[in-house]
Amino acid sequence: MNERLASAVQVASIAAWRSGSDGPLESHPDELAVEEPLEIRIASDPLAITMRTPGHDHELVAGFLLAEGLIRSRADLGGIRHCARPDIEGAHNTIDVLPAPGAVLEVEATRRGTLTTSACGMCGRKLITDLLARLQPSSELVPFRRSFIAGLASELSQQQPSFQRTGGLHAAGIAFEPGGLCVVREDVGRHNAVDKAIGRLLLDDRLPALGAVLVVSGRTSFEIVQKALAAGVSAVVGVSAPSSLAVSTAARFGLLLCGFARGTAFNVYAGAERLVD
Amino acid sequence: MNERLASAVQVASIAAWRSGSDGPLESHPDELAVEEPLEIRIASDPLAITMRTPGHDHELVAGFLLAEGLIRSRADLGGIRHCARPDIEGAHNTIDVLPAPGAVLEVEATRRGTLTTSACGMCGRKLITDLLARLQPSSELVPFRRSFIAGLASELSQQQPSFQRTGGLHAAGIAFEPGGLCVVREDVGRHNAVDKAIGRLLLDDRLPALGAVLVVSGRTSFEIVQKALAAGVSAVVGVSAPSSLAVSTAARFGLLLCGFARGTAFNVYAGAERLVD
Repeated sequence: MNERLASAVQVASIAAWRSGSDGPLESHPDELAVEEPLEIRIASDPLAITMRTPGHDHELVAGFLLAEGLIRSRADLGGIRHCARPDIEGAHNTIDVLPAPGAVLEVEATRRGTLTTSACGMCGRKLITDLLARLQPSSELVPFRRSFIAGLASELSQQQPSFQRTGGLHAAGIAFEPGGLCVVREDVGRHNAVDKAIGRLLLDDRLPALGAVLVVSGRTSFEIVQKALAAGVSAVVGVSAPSSLAVSTAARFGLLLCGFARGTAFNVYAGAERLVD
Repeated sequence: MNERLASAVQVASIAAWRSGSDGPLESHPDELAVEEPLEIRIASDPLAITMRTPGHDHELVAGFLLAEGLIRSRADLGGIRHCARPDIEGAHNTIDVLPAPGAVLEVEATRRGTLTTSACGMCGRKLITDLLARLQPSSELVPFRRSFIAGLASELSQQQPSFQRTGGLHAAGIAFEPGGLCVVREDVGRHNAVDKAIGRLLLDDRLPALGAVLVVSGRTSFEIVQKALAAGVSAVVGVSAPSSLAVSTAARFGLLLCGFARGTAFNVYAGAERLVD
Protein backbone atom coordinates (compact mmCIF):
# COMPACT_ATOMS: atom_id res chain seq x y z
CA MET A 1 0.00 0.00 0.00
CA ASN A 2 2.77 2.45 0.92
CA GLU A 3 4.63 1.75 -2.31
CA ARG A 4 1.49 2.52 -4.29
CA LEU A 5 0.80 5.77 -2.47
CA ALA A 6 4.40 6.85 -2.80
CA SER A 7 4.28 6.64 -6.59
CA ALA A 8 0.71 7.92 -7.03
CA VAL A 9 1.21 11.15 -5.08
CA GLN A 10 3.92 13.79 -5.31
CA VAL A 11 4.58 16.80 -3.08
CA ALA A 12 4.74 20.27 -4.65
CA SER A 13 4.89 23.84 -3.40
CA ILE A 14 1.78 25.78 -4.33
CA ALA A 15 0.38 29.24 -3.62
CA ALA A 16 -3.16 29.80 -2.40
CA TRP A 17 -5.35 32.87 -2.94
CA ARG A 18 -8.50 33.65 -1.01
CA SER A 19 -10.98 36.42 -1.56
CA GLY A 20 -10.00 39.45 0.52
CA SER A 21 -6.28 38.63 0.80
CA ASP A 22 -4.35 41.41 -0.94
CA GLY A 23 -0.77 40.74 0.10
CA PRO A 24 1.73 38.31 -1.38
CA LEU A 25 0.38 34.81 -1.88
CA GLU A 26 1.40 32.32 0.77
CA SER A 27 3.18 29.21 -0.41
CA HIS A 28 2.74 25.85 1.21
CA PRO A 29 3.36 22.21 0.34
CA ASP A 30 0.52 20.27 -1.27
CA GLU A 31 0.13 16.86 -2.89
CA LEU A 32 -0.41 16.19 -6.60
CA ALA A 33 -1.66 13.12 -8.40
CA VAL A 34 1.24 11.75 -10.42
CA GLU A 35 0.78 11.45 -14.20
CA GLU A 36 3.44 9.81 -16.36
CA PRO A 37 3.44 8.14 -19.77
CA LEU A 38 3.48 4.35 -20.05
CA GLU A 39 4.67 2.82 -23.31
CA ILE A 40 3.22 -0.63 -23.92
CA ARG A 41 5.21 -2.96 -26.18
CA ILE A 42 4.38 -6.39 -27.54
CA ALA A 43 7.51 -8.52 -27.86
CA SER A 44 9.58 -5.29 -27.86
CA ASP A 45 7.46 -3.69 -30.59
CA PRO A 46 5.75 -0.40 -29.53
CA LEU A 47 1.95 -0.76 -29.39
CA ALA A 48 0.50 2.22 -27.53
CA ILE A 49 1.22 4.93 -25.02
CA THR A 50 -1.11 5.91 -22.21
CA MET A 51 -0.80 8.70 -19.65
CA ARG A 52 -1.30 7.03 -16.27
CA THR A 53 -0.57 7.14 -12.58
CA PRO A 54 2.37 4.80 -11.90
CA GLY A 55 1.57 1.68 -9.90
CA HIS A 56 -0.27 -1.51 -10.82
CA ASP A 57 1.17 -1.22 -14.32
CA HIS A 58 0.91 -4.95 -14.99
CA GLU A 59 -2.80 -4.85 -14.21
CA LEU A 60 -3.23 -1.77 -16.39
CA VAL A 61 -1.60 -3.48 -19.35
CA ALA A 62 -3.56 -6.72 -18.86
CA GLY A 63 -6.86 -4.82 -18.68
CA PHE A 64 -5.98 -2.66 -21.66
CA LEU A 65 -5.10 -5.65 -23.85
CA LEU A 66 -8.35 -7.37 -22.87
CA ALA A 67 -10.46 -4.29 -23.70
CA GLU A 68 -8.67 -3.93 -27.04
CA GLY A 69 -9.50 -7.55 -27.88
CA LEU A 70 -5.82 -8.54 -28.10
CA ILE A 71 -6.10 -11.16 -25.37
CA ARG A 72 -9.04 -13.08 -23.92
CA SER A 73 -7.60 -14.46 -20.69
CA ARG A 74 -4.44 -14.93 -18.70
CA ALA A 75 -3.64 -17.94 -20.86
CA ASP A 76 -2.73 -15.61 -23.74
CA LEU A 77 -0.06 -13.90 -21.64
CA GLY A 78 3.46 -15.30 -21.51
CA GLY A 79 4.75 -12.50 -19.31
CA ILE A 80 4.55 -8.78 -18.52
CA ARG A 81 7.70 -6.97 -17.44
CA HIS A 82 9.05 -3.48 -17.07
CA CYS A 83 12.06 -2.39 -19.09
CA ALA A 84 15.01 -4.47 -17.93
CA ARG A 85 17.31 -1.47 -17.50
CA PRO A 86 16.37 -0.09 -14.07
CA ASP A 87 19.49 2.11 -14.18
CA ILE A 88 17.88 4.23 -16.90
CA GLU A 89 15.52 7.05 -15.98
CA GLY A 90 12.11 6.26 -17.40
CA ALA A 91 12.61 2.49 -17.37
CA HIS A 92 9.59 2.23 -15.07
CA ASN A 93 7.53 3.80 -17.85
CA THR A 94 8.03 1.04 -20.41
CA ILE A 95 6.30 -2.34 -20.26
CA ASP A 96 6.97 -5.28 -22.56
CA VAL A 97 4.37 -8.02 -23.02
CA LEU A 98 5.40 -11.50 -24.13
CA PRO A 99 2.56 -13.50 -25.69
CA ALA A 100 2.13 -17.05 -24.45
CA PRO A 101 3.55 -19.73 -26.76
CA GLY A 102 1.07 -20.12 -29.59
CA ALA A 103 -0.90 -16.96 -28.78
CA VAL A 104 -1.13 -14.43 -31.60
CA LEU A 105 -1.86 -10.82 -30.63
CA GLU A 106 -3.43 -8.95 -33.54
CA VAL A 107 -1.78 -5.63 -32.84
CA GLU A 108 -2.44 -3.78 -36.10
CA ALA A 109 -6.07 -2.88 -35.33
CA THR A 110 -5.06 -1.44 -31.97
CA ARG A 111 -2.11 0.40 -33.46
CA ARG A 112 -4.42 2.04 -35.96
CA GLY A 113 -6.67 3.13 -33.08
CA THR A 114 -10.22 2.06 -33.78
CA LEU A 115 -9.95 3.06 -37.42
CA THR A 116 -12.00 1.23 -39.93
CA THR A 117 -11.98 1.61 -43.66
CA SER A 118 -15.74 1.64 -43.72
CA ALA A 119 -17.49 3.02 -46.73
CA CYS A 120 -19.10 6.36 -45.99
CA GLY A 121 -22.53 4.76 -46.17
CA MET A 122 -21.93 3.05 -42.86
CA CYS A 123 -20.34 5.93 -41.00
CA GLY A 124 -20.80 5.86 -37.24
CA ARG A 125 -23.18 2.92 -37.13
CA LYS A 126 -20.63 0.62 -38.72
CA LEU A 127 -18.01 1.77 -36.25
CA ILE A 128 -20.08 0.89 -33.20
CA THR A 129 -20.99 -2.44 -34.75
CA ASP A 130 -17.31 -3.19 -35.29
CA LEU A 131 -16.41 -2.26 -31.74
CA LEU A 132 -19.12 -4.50 -30.33
CA ALA A 133 -18.69 -7.41 -32.74
CA ARG A 134 -16.42 -9.42 -30.47
CA LEU A 135 -18.57 -8.96 -27.38
CA GLN A 136 -21.21 -11.40 -26.24
CA PRO A 137 -24.49 -10.64 -24.45
CA SER A 138 -24.52 -11.98 -20.90
CA SER A 139 -25.35 -15.66 -20.92
CA GLU A 140 -26.87 -15.40 -17.45
CA LEU A 141 -28.79 -12.41 -16.10
CA VAL A 142 -27.57 -12.29 -12.51
CA PRO A 143 -29.99 -10.56 -10.09
CA PHE A 144 -28.74 -8.02 -7.53
CA ARG A 145 -30.26 -6.80 -4.29
CA ARG A 146 -31.07 -3.09 -4.39
CA SER A 147 -29.46 -2.41 -1.02
CA PHE A 148 -26.23 -4.04 -2.21
CA ILE A 149 -26.08 -1.79 -5.29
CA ALA A 150 -26.95 1.25 -3.17
CA GLY A 151 -24.00 0.79 -0.84
CA LEU A 152 -21.27 0.39 -3.44
CA ALA A 153 -20.59 4.05 -4.19
CA SER A 154 -19.94 5.02 -0.59
CA GLU A 155 -17.87 1.86 -0.14
CA LEU A 156 -15.73 2.95 -3.10
CA SER A 157 -15.32 6.49 -1.78
CA GLN A 158 -13.86 5.09 1.45
CA GLN A 159 -11.12 3.29 -0.49
CA GLN A 160 -9.62 6.17 -2.46
CA PRO A 161 -6.64 7.24 -0.32
CA SER A 162 -4.79 9.04 -3.12
CA PHE A 163 -7.91 10.94 -4.16
CA GLN A 164 -8.42 12.05 -0.59
CA ARG A 165 -4.89 13.47 -0.58
CA THR A 166 -4.95 15.12 -4.03
CA GLY A 167 -8.50 15.39 -5.38
CA GLY A 168 -6.95 14.40 -8.69
CA LEU A 169 -7.66 10.71 -9.25
CA HIS A 170 -10.54 8.59 -10.44
CA ALA A 171 -11.29 5.18 -8.98
CA ALA A 172 -12.75 1.91 -10.19
CA GLY A 173 -13.63 -1.14 -8.15
CA ILE A 174 -14.91 -4.68 -8.59
CA ALA A 175 -17.55 -5.98 -6.19
CA PHE A 176 -19.26 -9.33 -5.72
CA GLU A 177 -22.42 -9.93 -3.68
CA PRO A 178 -22.47 -10.24 -0.73
CA GLY A 179 -18.81 -9.49 0.04
CA GLY A 180 -18.59 -6.05 -1.54
CA LEU A 181 -15.52 -4.53 -3.15
CA CYS A 182 -12.62 -6.95 -3.60
CA VAL A 183 -10.35 -4.62 -5.58
CA VAL A 184 -10.13 -0.83 -5.94
CA ARG A 185 -7.68 1.02 -8.18
CA GLU A 186 -7.00 4.74 -8.63
CA ASP A 187 -5.58 6.61 -11.64
CA VAL A 188 -5.57 10.08 -13.18
CA GLY A 189 -7.36 8.45 -16.12
CA ARG A 190 -10.87 7.05 -15.68
CA HIS A 191 -10.26 4.33 -18.24
CA ASN A 192 -6.93 3.39 -16.68
CA ALA A 193 -8.57 2.85 -13.28
CA VAL A 194 -11.05 0.48 -14.95
CA ASP A 195 -8.29 -1.33 -16.84
CA LYS A 196 -6.32 -1.81 -13.60
CA ALA A 197 -9.31 -3.20 -11.68
CA ILE A 198 -10.30 -5.55 -14.49
CA GLY A 199 -6.65 -6.41 -15.15
CA ARG A 200 -6.39 -7.66 -11.55
CA LEU A 201 -9.27 -10.09 -12.22
CA LEU A 202 -7.61 -11.23 -15.45
CA LEU A 203 -4.23 -11.84 -13.79
CA ASP A 204 -6.06 -13.83 -11.09
CA ASP A 205 -7.73 -15.85 -13.87
CA ARG A 206 -11.20 -14.80 -12.70
CA LEU A 207 -12.65 -13.85 -16.13
CA PRO A 208 -15.35 -13.81 -17.36
CA ALA A 209 -16.45 -12.11 -14.13
CA LEU A 210 -20.05 -13.32 -13.97
CA GLY A 211 -21.82 -11.71 -11.02
CA ALA A 212 -19.25 -8.91 -10.72
CA VAL A 213 -20.17 -5.22 -10.46
CA LEU A 214 -17.81 -2.62 -11.91
CA VAL A 215 -18.08 0.54 -9.76
CA VAL A 216 -16.68 3.80 -11.17
CA SER A 217 -16.17 7.12 -9.37
CA GLY A 218 -17.29 9.33 -12.25
CA ARG A 219 -19.37 9.24 -15.39
CA THR A 220 -20.04 6.11 -17.42
CA SER A 221 -19.10 6.45 -21.08
CA PHE A 222 -19.50 3.97 -23.91
CA GLU A 223 -15.88 2.91 -23.48
CA ILE A 224 -16.41 2.00 -19.82
CA VAL A 225 -19.38 -0.19 -20.78
CA GLN A 226 -17.31 -1.75 -23.56
CA LYS A 227 -14.54 -2.62 -21.07
CA ALA A 228 -17.11 -4.09 -18.66
CA LEU A 229 -18.57 -6.28 -21.42
CA ALA A 230 -15.11 -7.47 -22.48
CA ALA A 231 -14.56 -8.66 -18.90
CA GLY A 232 -17.97 -10.31 -18.68
CA VAL A 233 -19.09 -8.37 -15.59
CA SER A 234 -22.83 -8.30 -14.88
CA ALA A 235 -23.39 -4.68 -13.79
CA VAL A 236 -21.87 -1.21 -13.91
CA VAL A 237 -22.56 1.33 -11.15
CA GLY A 238 -21.41 4.93 -11.63
CA VAL A 239 -21.36 7.77 -9.12
CA SER A 240 -22.30 10.20 -11.88
CA ALA A 241 -24.23 10.19 -15.18
CA PRO A 242 -24.02 7.67 -18.04
CA SER A 243 -23.96 8.78 -21.68
CA SER A 244 -26.67 7.92 -24.20
CA LEU A 245 -24.43 5.36 -25.90
CA ALA A 246 -23.47 3.76 -22.60
CA VAL A 247 -27.16 3.25 -21.84
CA SER A 248 -28.12 1.84 -25.25
CA THR A 249 -25.11 -0.51 -25.28
CA ALA A 250 -25.84 -1.77 -21.77
CA ALA A 251 -29.47 -2.43 -22.72
CA ARG A 252 -28.42 -4.30 -25.86
CA PHE A 253 -26.02 -6.60 -23.99
CA GLY A 254 -28.08 -7.28 -20.88
CA LEU A 255 -25.87 -5.27 -18.54
CA LEU A 256 -27.41 -3.71 -15.41
CA LEU A 257 -26.42 -0.02 -15.55
CA CYS A 258 -26.95 2.32 -12.59
CA GLY A 259 -25.89 5.94 -12.17
CA PHE A 260 -25.92 8.80 -9.66
CA ALA A 261 -25.33 6.13 -7.01
CA ARG A 262 -24.88 8.12 -3.81
CA GLY A 263 -25.61 6.08 -0.74
CA THR A 264 -29.35 6.26 -0.28
CA ALA A 265 -30.50 6.53 -3.90
CA PHE A 266 -29.56 5.59 -7.45
CA ASN A 267 -30.98 5.66 -10.97
CA VAL A 268 -31.34 2.58 -13.16
CA TYR A 269 -30.72 3.09 -16.88
CA ALA A 270 -30.74 -0.51 -18.12
CA GLY A 271 -31.63 -3.90 -16.67
CA ALA A 272 -34.00 -2.65 -13.94
CA GLU A 273 -35.84 -5.99 -14.04
CA ARG A 274 -32.78 -7.65 -12.49
CA LEU A 275 -33.00 -5.72 -9.24
CA VAL A 276 -34.62 -7.59 -6.34
CA ASP A 277 -35.61 -6.44 -2.86
CA MET B 1 -28.51 27.32 -29.17
CA ASN B 2 -31.63 25.21 -29.56
CA GLU B 3 -29.99 23.13 -32.27
CA ARG B 4 -27.02 22.49 -30.03
CA LEU B 5 -29.10 21.52 -27.03
CA ALA B 6 -31.28 19.31 -29.16
CA SER B 7 -28.33 17.21 -30.28
CA ALA B 8 -26.40 17.28 -26.99
CA VAL B 9 -29.25 15.94 -24.86
CA GLN B 10 -31.54 12.93 -25.34
CA VAL B 11 -34.63 11.88 -23.39
CA ALA B 12 -34.73 8.39 -21.87
CA SER B 13 -36.98 6.51 -19.48
CA ILE B 14 -35.19 5.65 -16.26
CA ALA B 15 -36.11 4.05 -12.95
CA ALA B 16 -35.20 5.60 -9.62
CA TRP B 17 -34.60 3.83 -6.31
CA ARG B 18 -34.52 5.53 -2.92
CA SER B 19 -33.66 4.05 0.43
CA GLY B 20 -36.81 2.78 2.12
CA SER B 21 -38.85 2.25 -1.03
CA ASP B 22 -39.63 -1.47 -1.30
CA GLY B 23 -42.23 -1.57 -4.08
CA PRO B 24 -41.69 -1.61 -7.83
CA LEU B 25 -39.32 1.09 -9.09
CA GLU B 26 -41.02 4.11 -10.56
CA SER B 27 -40.09 5.02 -14.11
CA HIS B 28 -39.89 8.60 -15.31
CA PRO B 29 -38.33 10.46 -18.23
CA ASP B 30 -34.85 11.88 -17.76
CA GLU B 31 -32.24 13.51 -19.99
CA LEU B 32 -28.95 11.94 -21.06
CA ALA B 33 -25.82 13.51 -22.51
CA VAL B 34 -25.51 12.28 -26.09
CA GLU B 35 -22.33 10.38 -27.02
CA GLU B 36 -21.68 9.36 -30.64
CA PRO B 37 -18.55 8.51 -32.64
CA LEU B 38 -17.06 11.06 -35.02
CA GLU B 39 -14.79 9.81 -37.77
CA ILE B 40 -12.30 12.44 -38.95
CA ARG B 41 -10.95 12.06 -42.48
CA ILE B 42 -8.28 14.03 -44.32
CA ALA B 43 -9.10 14.29 -48.03
CA SER B 44 -11.39 11.22 -47.62
CA ASP B 45 -8.69 9.17 -45.87
CA PRO B 46 -9.65 8.03 -42.32
CA LEU B 47 -7.46 9.67 -39.67
CA ALA B 48 -9.06 9.15 -36.26
CA ILE B 49 -12.29 8.45 -34.44
CA THR B 50 -13.37 10.23 -31.29
CA MET B 51 -16.41 9.65 -29.10
CA ARG B 52 -18.06 13.04 -28.73
CA THR B 53 -21.29 14.94 -28.13
CA PRO B 54 -22.66 16.03 -31.54
CA GLY B 55 -22.62 19.75 -32.23
CA HIS B 56 -19.76 22.14 -33.04
CA ASP B 57 -18.07 19.33 -34.97
CA HIS B 58 -16.13 21.70 -37.20
CA GLU B 59 -14.64 23.38 -34.14
CA LEU B 60 -13.83 20.00 -32.60
CA VAL B 61 -11.97 18.90 -35.71
CA ALA B 62 -10.09 22.20 -36.06
CA GLY B 63 -9.00 22.09 -32.41
CA PHE B 64 -8.03 18.43 -32.65
CA LEU B 65 -5.87 18.97 -35.74
CA LEU B 66 -4.15 21.92 -34.05
CA ALA B 67 -3.38 19.94 -30.89
CA GLU B 68 -2.04 17.05 -32.98
CA GLY B 69 0.30 19.45 -34.77
CA LEU B 70 -1.29 18.75 -38.17
CA ILE B 71 -2.27 22.39 -38.74
CA ARG B 72 -0.98 25.65 -37.28
CA SER B 73 -3.74 28.10 -38.24
CA ARG B 74 -6.88 28.55 -40.29
CA ALA B 75 -4.66 29.16 -43.33
CA ASP B 76 -3.85 25.42 -43.44
CA LEU B 77 -7.55 24.53 -43.78
CA GLY B 78 -9.16 24.41 -47.21
CA GLY B 79 -12.49 23.25 -45.84
CA ILE B 80 -14.26 21.11 -43.24
CA ARG B 81 -17.49 19.37 -44.20
CA HIS B 82 -19.74 16.59 -42.98
CA CYS B 83 -20.34 13.54 -45.15
CA ALA B 84 -22.15 14.74 -48.27
CA ARG B 85 -24.85 12.03 -48.06
CA PRO B 86 -27.36 13.41 -45.53
CA ASP B 87 -29.80 10.66 -46.57
CA ILE B 88 -27.60 8.08 -44.90
CA GLU B 89 -27.90 7.40 -41.17
CA GLY B 90 -24.62 8.32 -39.53
CA ALA B 91 -23.63 10.89 -42.14
CA HIS B 92 -23.51 13.49 -39.37
CA ASN B 93 -20.82 11.38 -37.72
CA THR B 94 -18.24 11.67 -40.49
CA ILE B 95 -16.19 14.80 -41.19
CA ASP B 96 -13.85 15.32 -44.12
CA VAL B 97 -11.07 17.92 -43.98
CA LEU B 98 -9.64 19.41 -47.15
CA PRO B 99 -6.16 20.90 -46.69
CA ALA B 100 -5.60 24.35 -48.16
CA PRO B 101 -3.76 24.39 -51.50
CA GLY B 102 -0.10 23.85 -50.72
CA ALA B 103 -0.70 22.74 -47.11
CA VAL B 104 0.65 19.30 -46.24
CA LEU B 105 -0.88 17.53 -43.23
CA GLU B 106 1.54 14.98 -41.81
CA VAL B 107 -1.07 12.42 -40.84
CA GLU B 108 1.09 9.38 -40.18
CA ALA B 109 2.28 10.45 -36.72
CA THR B 110 -1.30 11.05 -35.61
CA ARG B 111 -2.51 7.83 -37.15
CA ARG B 112 0.11 5.97 -35.16
CA GLY B 113 -1.12 7.67 -32.00
CA THR B 114 1.78 9.24 -30.19
CA LEU B 115 3.97 6.24 -30.85
CA THR B 116 7.68 6.77 -31.10
CA THR B 117 10.31 4.23 -31.95
CA SER B 118 12.48 5.49 -29.12
CA ALA B 119 15.30 3.35 -27.92
CA CYS B 120 14.52 1.90 -24.51
CA GLY B 121 17.15 4.17 -22.98
CA MET B 122 14.89 7.14 -23.54
CA CYS B 123 11.62 5.60 -22.43
CA GLY B 124 9.07 8.06 -21.03
CA ARG B 125 11.34 11.07 -20.96
CA LYS B 126 11.91 10.90 -24.71
CA LEU B 127 8.18 10.65 -25.28
CA ILE B 128 7.37 13.82 -23.37
CA THR B 129 10.22 15.60 -25.13
CA ASP B 130 8.79 14.55 -28.49
CA LEU B 131 5.29 15.70 -27.58
CA LEU B 132 6.56 19.10 -26.49
CA ALA B 133 9.13 19.61 -29.25
CA ARG B 134 6.84 21.62 -31.49
CA LEU B 135 5.59 23.88 -28.70
CA GLN B 136 7.13 27.26 -27.87
CA PRO B 137 7.39 28.93 -24.45
CA SER B 138 5.21 32.02 -24.21
CA SER B 139 6.97 34.97 -25.82
CA GLU B 140 5.18 37.37 -23.51
CA LEU B 141 4.23 36.69 -19.88
CA VAL B 142 0.80 38.32 -19.67
CA PRO B 143 -0.20 39.37 -16.11
CA PHE B 144 -3.70 38.62 -14.76
CA ARG B 145 -5.68 40.21 -11.96
CA ARG B 146 -6.42 37.78 -9.14
CA SER B 147 -10.08 38.76 -8.96
CA PHE B 148 -10.47 38.09 -12.70
CA ILE B 149 -9.05 34.57 -12.34
CA ALA B 150 -11.18 33.97 -9.25
CA GLY B 151 -14.44 34.67 -11.06
CA LEU B 152 -13.93 32.43 -14.09
CA ALA B 153 -15.01 29.11 -12.61
CA SER B 154 -18.40 30.36 -11.47
CA GLU B 155 -18.84 32.19 -14.78
CA LEU B 156 -18.21 28.88 -16.58
CA SER B 157 -20.65 26.99 -14.37
CA GLN B 158 -23.41 29.41 -15.35
CA GLN B 159 -22.91 28.62 -19.03
CA GLN B 160 -23.30 24.83 -19.01
CA PRO B 161 -26.95 24.32 -19.96
CA SER B 162 -26.54 20.70 -21.08
CA PHE B 163 -24.63 19.78 -17.92
CA GLN B 164 -27.39 21.30 -15.83
CA ARG B 165 -29.89 19.07 -17.60
CA THR B 166 -27.88 15.83 -17.60
CA GLY B 167 -24.95 16.04 -15.17
CA GLY B 168 -23.02 14.24 -17.88
CA LEU B 169 -20.92 16.79 -19.76
CA HIS B 170 -17.67 18.61 -19.23
CA ALA B 171 -17.15 22.21 -20.27
CA ALA B 172 -14.27 24.35 -21.49
CA GLY B 173 -14.25 28.08 -22.07
CA ILE B 174 -11.96 30.81 -23.37
CA ALA B 175 -11.79 34.11 -21.49
CA PHE B 176 -9.99 37.39 -22.08
CA GLU B 177 -9.51 40.15 -19.50
CA PRO B 178 -11.60 42.15 -18.80
CA GLY B 179 -14.51 40.81 -20.84
CA GLY B 180 -14.65 37.31 -19.39
CA LEU B 181 -15.72 34.18 -21.24
CA CYS B 182 -16.21 34.65 -24.98
CA VAL B 183 -16.82 30.99 -25.86
CA VAL B 184 -18.00 27.97 -23.86
CA ARG B 185 -18.35 24.45 -25.23
CA GLU B 186 -19.71 21.25 -23.65
CA ASP B 187 -18.92 17.62 -24.45
CA VAL B 188 -18.97 14.18 -22.83
CA GLY B 189 -15.20 14.20 -23.32
CA ARG B 190 -13.04 16.70 -21.42
CA HIS B 191 -10.54 16.91 -24.24
CA ASN B 192 -13.27 17.39 -26.84
CA ALA B 193 -14.69 20.38 -24.95
CA VAL B 194 -11.22 21.94 -25.01
CA ASP B 195 -10.76 21.16 -28.71
CA LYS B 196 -14.12 22.78 -29.51
CA ALA B 197 -13.38 25.97 -27.58
CA ILE B 198 -9.90 26.32 -29.06
CA GLY B 199 -11.18 25.29 -32.49
CA ARG B 200 -13.59 28.24 -32.38
CA LEU B 201 -10.62 30.59 -31.91
CA LEU B 202 -8.76 28.91 -34.74
CA LEU B 203 -11.70 29.18 -37.14
CA ASP B 204 -11.98 32.87 -36.18
CA ASP B 205 -8.26 33.22 -36.96
CA ARG B 206 -7.50 34.35 -33.41
CA LEU B 207 -4.46 32.13 -32.76
CA PRO B 208 -2.02 32.30 -31.08
CA ALA B 209 -4.38 33.38 -28.32
CA LEU B 210 -2.02 35.59 -26.29
CA GLY B 211 -3.79 36.82 -23.16
CA ALA B 212 -6.44 34.09 -23.31
CA VAL B 213 -7.37 31.90 -20.34
CA LEU B 214 -8.54 28.34 -20.93
CA VAL B 215 -11.08 27.44 -18.22
CA VAL B 216 -11.95 23.76 -17.70
CA SER B 217 -14.73 22.28 -15.58
CA GLY B 218 -12.72 19.35 -14.24
CA ARG B 219 -9.17 18.23 -13.68
CA THR B 220 -6.18 19.51 -15.65
CA SER B 221 -4.11 16.74 -17.22
CA PHE B 222 -0.92 16.96 -19.25
CA GLU B 223 -2.94 16.74 -22.44
CA ILE B 224 -5.04 19.79 -21.53
CA VAL B 225 -1.88 21.81 -20.91
CA GLN B 226 -0.46 20.55 -24.20
CA LYS B 227 -3.58 21.72 -26.07
CA ALA B 228 -3.41 25.12 -24.33
CA LEU B 229 0.23 25.54 -25.35
CA ALA B 230 -0.54 24.58 -28.96
CA ALA B 231 -3.11 27.38 -29.04
CA GLY B 232 -0.75 29.89 -27.42
CA VAL B 233 -3.09 30.71 -24.53
CA SER B 234 -1.51 32.39 -21.48
CA ALA B 235 -3.25 30.63 -18.58
CA VAL B 236 -5.23 27.52 -17.65
CA VAL B 237 -7.76 27.58 -14.82
CA GLY B 238 -9.31 24.31 -13.65
CA VAL B 239 -12.19 23.75 -11.27
CA SER B 240 -10.44 20.67 -9.90
CA ALA B 241 -6.88 19.36 -9.43
CA PRO B 242 -4.00 19.38 -11.93
CA SER B 243 -1.70 16.38 -12.37
CA SER B 244 2.02 16.43 -11.62
CA LEU B 245 2.90 16.47 -15.32
CA ALA B 246 0.44 19.29 -16.03
CA VAL B 247 2.16 21.37 -13.36
CA SER B 248 5.74 20.68 -14.49
CA THR B 249 4.85 21.32 -18.14
CA ALA B 250 3.08 24.58 -17.34
CA ALA B 251 6.09 25.75 -15.32
CA ARG B 252 8.47 24.85 -18.11
CA PHE B 253 6.51 26.79 -20.73
CA GLY B 254 5.60 29.88 -18.73
CA LEU B 255 1.91 29.07 -18.46
CA LEU B 256 -0.07 30.35 -15.48
CA LEU B 257 -1.81 27.27 -14.03
CA CYS B 258 -4.52 27.54 -11.37
CA GLY B 259 -6.70 24.80 -9.87
CA PHE B 260 -9.52 24.26 -7.39
CA ALA B 261 -10.92 27.58 -8.65
CA ARG B 262 -14.24 27.88 -6.85
CA GLY B 263 -15.40 31.48 -6.64
CA THR B 264 -13.67 32.92 -3.65
CA ALA B 265 -10.42 30.96 -3.68
CA PHE B 266 -8.00 29.16 -5.97
CA ASN B 267 -4.60 27.49 -5.89
CA VAL B 268 -1.69 28.52 -8.11
CA TYR B 269 0.55 25.70 -9.36
CA ALA B 270 2.75 27.56 -11.86
CA GLY B 271 3.35 31.19 -12.83
CA ALA B 272 2.22 32.75 -9.52
CA GLU B 273 4.51 35.74 -10.18
CA ARG B 274 2.17 36.80 -13.00
CA LEU B 275 -0.80 37.44 -10.72
CA VAL B 276 -1.37 41.08 -9.81
CA ASP B 277 -3.78 42.70 -7.35
